[in-house]
Amino acid sequence: MIRTEDLGIANLKFIQDSDLFCFGTDSVLLSDFARASHSDVVVDLCTGGGIIPILMSAKTKAKKLYGIELQSCSYDLAVQNIAINGLRERVEVICDDIANVLSHFKSGSADVVTCNPPYMSADSGFKNPDEPLAIARHEIRTNLVGVVDAADKILKYGGHFYMVHRADRLCDIIWELRSRKLEPKRIRFVQGSPDKSAKLILIEAMKGAAPSLKLEPPVFVNI
Amino acid sequence: MIRTEDLGIANLKFIQDSDLFCFGTDSVLLSDFARASHSDVVVDLCTGGGIIPILMSAKTKAKKLYGIELQSCSYDLAVQNIAINGLRERVEVICDDIANVLSHFKSGSADVVTCNPPYMSADSGFKNPDEPLAIARHEIRTNLVGVVDAADKILKYGGHFYMVHRADRLCDIIWELRSRKLEPKRIRFVQGSPDKSAKLILIEAMKGAAPSLKLEPPVFVNI
Repeated sequence: MIRTEDLGIANLKFIQDSDLFCFGTDSVLLSDFARASHSDVVVDLCTGGGIIPILMSAKTKAKKLYGIELQSCSYDLAVQNIAINGLRERVEVICDDIANVLSHFKSGSADVVTCNPPYMSADSGFKNPDEPLAIARHEIRTNLVGVVDAADKILKYGGHFYMVHRADRLCDIIWELRSRKLEPKRIRFVQGSPDKSAKLILIEAMKGAAPSLKLEPPVFVNI
Repeated sequence: MIRTEDLGIANLKFIQDSDLFCFGTDSVLLSDFARASHSDVVVDLCTGGGIIPILMSAKTKAKKLYGIELQSCSYDLAVQNIAINGLRERVEVICDDIANVLSHFKSGSADVVTCNPPYMSADSGFKNPDEPLAIARHEIRTNLVGVVDAADKILKYGGHFYMVHRADRLCDIIWELRSRKLEPKRIRFVQGSPDKSAKLILIEAMKGAAPSLKLEPPVFVNI
């Protein structure tokens, strides 16, 4: 079922199809966590209906925001979402696999890369029998390595990568980032409450930076 | 000044010299976090006055607990602490640099290694002008790499390493552990309060284990 939501920020609206993957708290948290400066080029990997570049367009003065989305059903929604918000000048979406990211962006051309990837394991937990939903949630068509590889390819030296992922993948995330000289600079954990363990991690890495990490206070959200 | 404290656990007492490094909350937290089974051989690196093996002797049924301490002044206190608690059968302390750990323990002979290392940077922050205190607190005579190397040398396959360290060294810790196939299995952050960022990390790694991390709820302690 198609519905249009008011995002409550800068009069932004967002069309969702409840038969497809609907954006969640994790995307909103990542948009809040990420930063972009005036004149930055921002690329959102696995953009779905385009929620992150649309929220980032209101929050930042980034010159141009791109999204790349594998599934044509979600891509179509992203195109509509960009149009209804009058953002066609600043936000553009591409329908392709993030493995082909260099077909669309030059190496080192992005100032900022954001990503809320599918982060449920491909072979564990309940997998949605509906293929588009399963691809959006589970590591079927891409995974942590694929996402970090794609970010690394297009980020410029000194550029920033922002990702939300499962907190229990912390070690894998740090390993994959640092292996590519994407040095983690800032981490915020997301917990249901102070006495619960973290469920999600928001992480910022900077390409080519020296090690020095800022751990931020956790954020408490029911997820 | 020498003083004897009642540790409030199993009638244990602890002699401290306020002119030397006195044990802190971090050592108590690490002893609480660490585990050892019946018949385990436990080695505590940078043991100071022996607080960790002494607390672990009361908490666990470990067969034999060793401490290794570089500074003779702290080693002397550890020997006294073992004696006043009647632990000479189970707890033994060695005075040497942890770089020489293989002079005292066979490769792969330890079931459990614990460590509360000096974790202030050697070249940053206030460094105590008193040399023994500075060596105990700052990375002067050993550092993260030295500690992880020593643990790796003596731990058996499947053995466990428990460490407390600065939370902002998270990435370095995970990197150094995983580089040696010491896979992080359990992490607990230590925060002053729910709205503060983590100051310390308690981490358990298992030698040769497959990746799978359990993040525990944070512990709130004023440190």
